[in-house]
Amino acid sequence: MLTKTQRLTLVEQVAYQIQGKIENGEWQVGMRIPAEPELMEQLQVSRNTLREAIRALTYAGLLKTRQGDGTYVCSSSVLGSVIEKVIQHTDMLESLEVRYALEREAAALAASRRSEEDLEAIRTCLDQCRQAASQQDLKAYAHWDVEFHKMVIAASHNQLMANLYNHITEALHNMLLETKDFKNAAYYHDSHELLYQAIANQDCTQAEEAVRLYIEKARAKLS
Amino acid sequence: MLTKTQRLTLVEQVAYQIQGKIENGEWQVGMRIPAEPELMEQLQVSRNTLREAIRALTYAGLLKTRQGDGTYVCSSSVLGSVIEKVIQHTDMLESLEVRYALEREAAALAASRRSEEDLEAIRTCLDQCRQAASQQDLKAYAHWDVEFHKMVIAASHNQLMANLYNHITEALHNMLLETKDFKNAAYYHDSHELLYQAIANQDCTQAEEAVRLYIEKARAKLS
Repeated sequence: MLTKTQRLTLVEQVAYQIQGKIENGEWQVGMRIPAEPELMEQLQVSRNTLREAIRALTYAGLLKTRQGDGTYVCSSSVLGSVIEKVIQHTDMLESLEVRYALEREAAALAASRRSEEDLEAIRTCLDQCRQAASQQDLKAYAHWDVEFHKMVIAASHNQLMANLYNHITEALHNMLLETKDFKNAAYYHDSHELLYQAIANQDCTQAEEAVRLYIEKARAKLS
Repeated sequence: MLTKTQRLTLVEQVAYQIQGKIENGEWQVGMRIPAEPELMEQLQVSRNTLREAIRALTYAGLLKTRQGDGTYVCSSSVLGSVIEKVIQHTDMLESLEVRYALEREAAALAASRRSEEDLEAIRTCLDQCRQAASQQDLKAYAHWDVEFHKMVIAASHNQLMANLYNHITEALHNMLLETKDFKNAAYYHDSHELLYQAIANQDCTQAEEAVRLYIEKARAKLS
């Protein structure tokens, strides 16, 4: 069957090529992209076309140009940068309710679908969390806490769920870092341990209950 | 407190102005935007600046230029157009699982937060659905079915949840339309009626159960 040809302008073609490099990880967040002459040579386009493509990607939130310095990758996907902007204008309770919706279902799916590798990855995050708490290392604690939740979602083997969740979580990460402390570390650790056990035992009901417990705690802290 | 000034290029300023018109509904999806000379006059910018802003918005998925015709609004928000692209590459089961996650939690929140106006709006959609089914009007049936779910989500009074859900649903709408039939209309009607009653009675558990019922049915149809 013939499919309708999509006519892309040269600028769009160049922009999609650069977007591809970012989304497949060849160009990582924080990296300065190659200088204009090098990109013009690689992509075989004029300076004007290249500049316009870069401005389109800047508008889409993937690149950021620093005057007199260069152009940097500032988000790994268009979805990520858009969700980040939305989250910045959302209150914490609303974000928490959406996290609960996604985490609860993902926990149940993870309990029924997790592989042995998934379990090991979740276990590692939990152990790192506990270690960071014992060393009072707040930054490491926040990092491994986010990783723990990401690994649970990954174990649901639902790519769309993971995609949405990871972007929301990354957008929240900096805000969370500001309010993070060790006051409830023991409580969270117990409920996270419960979630790990439920996923290990493939117990969907218990997995949902564990999520409910730590979300309730976080909700109480907000109000 | 002084805040860091954000330096925007002229192209970005123009693009944000146009984006604002689209996101606040002044320019609706499907509408042809004013011709170049008129926009240049309104925004007080040169042709080149305007064209580049329009190309950036085209790349971001808000506008579409048809050769020899003009430029049309094709999405009401950047988030919408990005989610649409993601959904197009997601399988139906994954989308259904994400819908379940969001709808279940939203149903429980709706049961505890719904106003009388929310209830009336949900009732209207249900009645319209039933009428469309009795007239074998597939298009109207699909439309009111989507509206019913959007109204339930709106009754959760969580804007982020509604935002994500509505975009996912709109992206799915065309696909759903293709597979929609009246075979299970009675079943869906009963489970939607159950959801309405649970929200009216402020019964969170029953509301979640009603969502589980119709999602199970939809899942069975997929496999």
